[in-house]
Amino acid sequence: MRIGDLSKQSQVSVPTIKYYLREGLLPAGAPTATNQADYGETHLERLRLIRALIDVGRLTVSAARDVLAAVDAPDLPPHHKLGTAQHAISRTTRTDPADPAWAAARSEIDALVTARDWWIDADAPALHQATEAVRTMRALGLADILTACLPAYADAADAVAAREVSAVAARHDPTAMVHGVIVGTLLGESLLNALRLLAQQNVSARTFGP
Amino acid sequence: MRIGDLSKQSQVSVPTIKYYLREGLLPAGAPTATNQADYGETHLERLRLIRALIDVGRLTVSAARDVLAAVDAPDLPPHHKLGTAQHAISRTTRTDPADPAWAAARSEIDALVTARDWWIDADAPALHQATEAVRTMRALGLADILTACLPAYADAADAVAAREVSAVAARHDPTAMVHGVIVGTLLGESLLNALRLLAQQNVSARTFGP
Repeated sequence: MRIGDLSKQSQVSVPTIKYYLREGLLPAGAPTATNQADYGETHLERLRLIRALIDVGRLTVSAARDVLAAVDAPDLPPHHKLGTAQHAISRTTRTDPADPAWAAARSEIDALVTARDWWIDADAPALHQATEAVRTMRALGLADILTACLPAYADAADAVAAREVSAVAARHDPTAMVHGVIVGTLLGESLLNALRLLAQQNVSARTFGP
Repeated sequence: MRIGDLSKQSQVSVPTIKYYLREGLLPAGAPTATNQADYGETHLERLRLIRALIDVGRLTVSAARDVLAAVDAPDLPPHHKLGTAQHAISRTTRTDPADPAWAAARSEIDALVTARDWWIDADAPALHQATEAVRTMRALGLADILTACLPAYADAADAVAAREVSAVAARHDPTAMVHGVIVGTLLGESLLNALRLLAQQNVSARTFGP
């Protein structure tokens, strides 16, 4: 198809597509006799991934390029392709190892990771996010609720992740897998959080009477 | 204790405490012979809740006052006190019932709520948040992942909510319960999300090899 059709089908404007071509995010089309280029399904799929990275993942063009380079690297194992995608969309959280309360919270998370035998990058941003949440819950007097709920959170995380990774793995193609990781991680989070609020309402109504 | 001690113990400045007194968020202290006021543990606890509402829940002073009015209402059942708190910290999401894709996503969420027999307010903001997440996942080509993961999300939500509501109910006092709902809902979400990312890393490493 021509660039105009690619634009129509992808709902990405022609100038934006040309910008992605110049920046190397989108591979060039096959040259045709009429001094134009021909684009195919792989370009359409790549455009969808680029938009997911930028619109849903809120990545900069330069960060999106790094993720795409990982997607394209022929020798990179799938775990690293997916890890690069997950890392790119992770929130950075403040770390304060000198603060005893922060260090205690970090030990608590490290103990959880060890007890569950989770294979985790030592510098995973999510370790900091979990630590900061635990530190703040304790600081705000929620030690009782934290103790009661932490095992349930970890069980839920295990169950959800098992289903998610197997759904992503079923896709086989690296581009589709990374697309699934980016969109699935971010929107799945929003969906899980919303369902948790609904389930809380239900349990509260049944516990206390409506 | 005097207002200066209340400030020291709560780490809230004296002018801010006076502002809360004027705005009716904090009840007046007991007048003393020396034309001052005496504050007790209930004031300290109330101040912690006010700061949780404003700092963690990002509520305006006026929204915080509404939640506190619900906390104080003698005849309001606990489910409504907790519901008011949960509602106040819910994100508003765009709703678009005229869009067929939005309406289809809403039907999917309604079917889930019915199948699980969840007792839910028909206007719960979390219904909109869940709908928007489902709509966007389908629009971005994640129908396969959504189908595979939705039951796991709902199971996780049920399990987590059961533990959370029972931990909050164990607190008995309405102020402490609402404090637990506000802080627990927001920081528990951050903790659960971080653990999900860690569990994903673990399952990915074990599925694809590290």
